Amino acid sequence: MSQANASSTPTHPLVESDRVEGTAVYDAHQKSIGTIKRLVIEKVSGQVIYAVTSFGGLLGVGSEVHTIPWEQLHYDTTLHGFRTNITEEQLRNAPEFSRGDKALLSRRDWEELSEYYAGPL
Amino acid sequence: MSQANASSTPTHPLVESDRVEGTAVYDAHQKSIGTIKRLVIEKVSGQVIYAVTSFGGLLGVGSEVHTIPWEQLHYDTTLHGFRTNITEEQLRNAPEFSRGDKALLSRRDWEELSEYYAGPL
Repeated sequence: MSQANASSTPTHPLVESDRVEGTAVYDAHQKSIGTIKRLVIEKVSGQVIYAVTSFGGLLGVGSEVHTIPWEQLHYDTTLHGFRTNITEEQLRNAPEFSRGDKALLSRRDWEELSEYYAGPL
Repeated sequence: MSQANASSTPTHPLVESDRVEGTAVYDAHQKSIGTIKRLVIEKVSGQVIYAVTSFGGLLGVGSEVHTIPWEQLHYDTTLHGFRTNITEEQLRNAPEFSRGDKALLSRRDWEELSEYYAGPL
């Protein structure tokens, strides 16, 4: 309705940093499993590195917040949200530092997390 | 003090999407000229495309909001803010659609803006 509302349309290829919260996350079967709380951006490159994500208990892990590497999230312009192939088991076994709504991760931690989620299922 | 405060330290290489606001912008002479209002991120790539920036009147253009292409902002880990070579004259002559706190730009507009600021001074 207002211009501000129009700018938050889920079909737009861009999203404002202050409107990221609540973007839907879907599993490999297109089932809604959570929402983005925030993206975390590298200041020098301007690249999103990871997303702090609320899982709503639908994936069987209870209602939990997990840090998810950006490369595990694929924006789907049909679903208007991010798809991920991350499984319940991966979330259950994720490193402790990636659970909950923590302070910013060190480079070492975020690289370890990327390797963890990129590993064999 | 709290973990949440610790996470917003300007020396960390990462920034949370909900803490971007207020990041300082400096001119080529390291004079503070404004602050970031928000970053705008491409959903598919996770790359910041542009920043909506408040100029505080210090650059001689009055207190104005301008959309600035990401490539014109260079994060300076010493200054803890973004440096830019953008001049007062460039801001004065910037395309109308890049002025003020507008809705998300179309790809055509953001590409035109990149070309405008990349052009000869």
